[in-house]
Amino acid sequence: MGQKPSIPKGTRDFLPQQSLKRQFIFDTARKVFQSYGYVPIETPAMENLDTLLGKYGEEEDKLIYKILNNGDYLSKASDEKIKARDSQGLSMEISDRALRYDLTVPFARFVVQNQNELSFPFKRFQIQPVWRADRPQKGRYREFYQCDVDVIGSDSLLNEAELLCIIDDVFNQLGLGDIKIRINNRKILSGIAESAGLSGYFTQMTVAIDKLDKIGVDGVKEAMLRNGLPEAGVKKALNLIKLKGEPFGTLKMLSGAVTGVEEAYKGMQEVKTLLNALPEAVREKVELDLTLARGLNYYTGAIIEVGHAEFPSSICGGGRYDDLTGIFGLKGMSGVGVSLGADRIYDLMEAKGLFPDSIQATSEVMFVNFGEKEVLPCLGLAADIRSEGISAEVYPDPARMKKQMKYANDKGVTMVVMIGEEEMNNRTASVKNMRTGEQKLVAQKELTSFMAETLR
Amino acid sequence: MGQKPSIPKGTRDFLPQQSLKRQFIFDTARKVFQSYGYVPIETPAMENLDTLLGKYGEEEDKLIYKILNNGDYLSKASDEKIKARDSQGLSMEISDRALRYDLTVPFARFVVQNQNELSFPFKRFQIQPVWRADRPQKGRYREFYQCDVDVIGSDSLLNEAELLCIIDDVFNQLGLGDIKIRINNRKILSGIAESAGLSGYFTQMTVAIDKLDKIGVDGVKEAMLRNGLPEAGVKKALNLIKLKGEPFGTLKMLSGAVTGVEEAYKGMQEVKTLLNALPEAVREKVELDLTLARGLNYYTGAIIEVGHAEFPSSICGGGRYDDLTGIFGLKGMSGVGVSLGADRIYDLMEAKGLFPDSIQATSEVMFVNFGEKEVLPCLGLAADIRSEGISAEVYPDPARMKKQMKYANDKGVTMVVMIGEEEMNNRTASVKNMRTGEQKLVAQKELTSFMAETLR
Repeated sequence: MGQKPSIPKGTRDFLPQQSLKRQFIFDTARKVFQSYGYVPIETPAMENLDTLLGKYGEEEDKLIYKILNNGDYLSKASDEKIKARDSQGLSMEISDRALRYDLTVPFARFVVQNQNELSFPFKRFQIQPVWRADRPQKGRYREFYQCDVDVIGSDSLLNEAELLCIIDDVFNQLGLGDIKIRINNRKILSGIAESAGLSGYFTQMTVAIDKLDKIGVDGVKEAMLRNGLPEAGVKKALNLIKLKGEPFGTLKMLSGAVTGVEEAYKGMQEVKTLLNALPEAVREKVELDLTLARGLNYYTGAIIEVGHAEFPSSICGGGRYDDLTGIFGLKGMSGVGVSLGADRIYDLMEAKGLFPDSIQATSEVMFVNFGEKEVLPCLGLAADIRSEGISAEVYPDPARMKKQMKYANDKGVTMVVMIGEEEMNNRTASVKNMRTGEQKLVAQKELTSFMAETLR
Repeated sequence: MGQKPSIPKGTRDFLPQQSLKRQFIFDTARKVFQSYGYVPIETPAMENLDTLLGKYGEEEDKLIYKILNNGDYLSKASDEKIKARDSQGLSMEISDRALRYDLTVPFARFVVQNQNELSFPFKRFQIQPVWRADRPQKGRYREFYQCDVDVIGSDSLLNEAELLCIIDDVFNQLGLGDIKIRINNRKILSGIAESAGLSGYFTQMTVAIDKLDKIGVDGVKEAMLRNGLPEAGVKKALNLIKLKGEPFGTLKMLSGAVTGVEEAYKGMQEVKTLLNALPEAVREKVELDLTLARGLNYYTGAIIEVGHAEFPSSICGGGRYDDLTGIFGLKGMSGVGVSLGADRIYDLMEAKGLFPDSIQATSEVMFVNFGEKEVLPCLGLAADIRSEGISAEVYPDPARMKKQMKYANDKGVTMVVMIGEEEMNNRTASVKNMRTGEQKLVAQKELTSFMAETLR
């Protein structure tokens, strides 16, 4: 009987049609990235375990997939860890490598390791899978693609502006132009904390704010108070953070409330510079949202999150990080980047029917196989048709007509060509258009031009 | 100081230029595959361990990368295996998943698992990385891409013919048309064994023959004798196997020597049918090589290996396997496929300078940044140029001219645009062609059409 086949929980097979649609998203993004001078890189799926550990947080480290060393990996493991059945401790001794958890840390490692080969500012994109031992749930997988685009080695705010233009271009080209870009700036958040007397509680404050969507303002307030933040400060901070909307107006309201706080002014100036560098068509999609924190502690300037009118959750996000490569020994490299959520974009496009009809896991022309003799001229004719850039296949077996037509139909073939004995003798071909049902007799020597006319 | 960054032995980073060239190879192959009606699939990097084990051979199983279970993986491990420090035994208890070792077994698993979603014959291609804990050496990596194209669910020899046409198309388009396709047929080998009285030693015979390139005829003979094969039979088999060259002639010589051996005739008939289905341009690249065994025991009919005049080793190989999905519970599915060696093709193209010059990890146009004020019109002009399908970037920082020009030069930018104070006031742009050194003053409103004319 054999094994009943399955794949690991949280992973997916992609069928042909899905695979082509994913390819379409990635190709579209790639083309836009390249039009702005961004260049692709690839890094290995496996990184050294110590490259990854300690970069994401303690909870996240547990979600990293470790690879068991090959060979007699236990021979060098310590007795005490084995005896204590210390899974976590032992894993450090029997696993030297792990699957990448995101593309940002491997990118930082890449930049430091290959710095002599790169020109800075280095503008790269990277489209590769990552792995996380997360609990699988709807829309969350253990293997999924990230699509990251970053500039490293420049602190100019033109980079932030450029990334917003890139995002807008990609989504426009995918038919998802109706996006809302929310931005914030870590320095503004920090200035708000300072003006509210919460400077010593900055991390607790942003962690709480980051949960606003889930737990509401009252929940955030409660969380902050529970963490021992002074009530007056919490009230002031929450009042400021609630400001939201058209960026210049919001900045104006904010500026009165944070008088004299240098850091807040710096952040506000950054937001203004960014906005002024944007073309009108992009700027009008931007909203300043002071509640945007995106949890990640490495952001130091701009924070970016993109949503769609019909999709509440985020489809793209990122920000500026001033010292990502420092941990690998290269200081003073400021970077900014965003990551597109390929799975969410896919689902959204599918729901809205946005994939072009031309994405079909099929060939355009199929030749029916009437037997060993009749099929031979079909091979040359199919090759001819292909040379016009039209995909064509010959059914490989002289199976029953019904079976061959079912195959053509299931696969979505547009034109079926039949060359039976009679057609062979007359050097003709019966052509059936599977969309219209129309059938026609065409001379073999005109078949290719007929296909080119009909299908192009 | 931070960690000194490195990646696991046998893995690679791909720099932008390499990444684009790899993409070019894959895009070329993909386009050809699709023109024949083949469709893409993707499978997860992680498969269940028991999907992979026992499919490749005992030695190969040891090269499979196992993934350590997450959480407290030791809690359910058996005392006896831990005490005995039985690495191999324990790995089955602490690892449920593994990285795929090739694309063939995951494909078989995919076909069985998704059979109700597929139309048969199913023609698929798959371009994804695989992982092997092999000893790294020149040209052999622990992570590398495979590029597989297979038909499953048809035993027609037209599939073999089609695959040879596909191979020829791909290599022609890559500029590597000077290939030599060696073919053989397992049934012929089996018939030769029978006629030489070695039927009971078939596996030993093919294993020995498979090493012919490395150990020579004498070595093969010795190996066979050492394994207890009767000397007379060994001599006869080796005499037949040495036959080589133009296929029809070789078949003629062979047919006299295997009179009455049904299996050999069946194999020879298959070779003839395959050859007759090939266009002349492909047929003349085909050589029948009876020493071709390709070790893999699952081949049951055609065996295919492609070399290049300037590259002794194989750049593509495959064959027919009659029952690959049987192990997953789906019987009677005959398949045939080939796998392109992406790394070898890359090296060969690089050595011969075959990658098109247009593959450049750069943008075509770069605007120099003269300062916050001067840069703003550049942003709009760059956007305009992009809308013509020309890649353009604006240097993000108002850095020294020398630094900006060095960046443009290092990156390989073709046209540098300078809009300083004077040009801004006059609505002009100084354009420098970095290839020719020529410099020109162009009106800003004509800049896009100027670029389109010069670069297209």
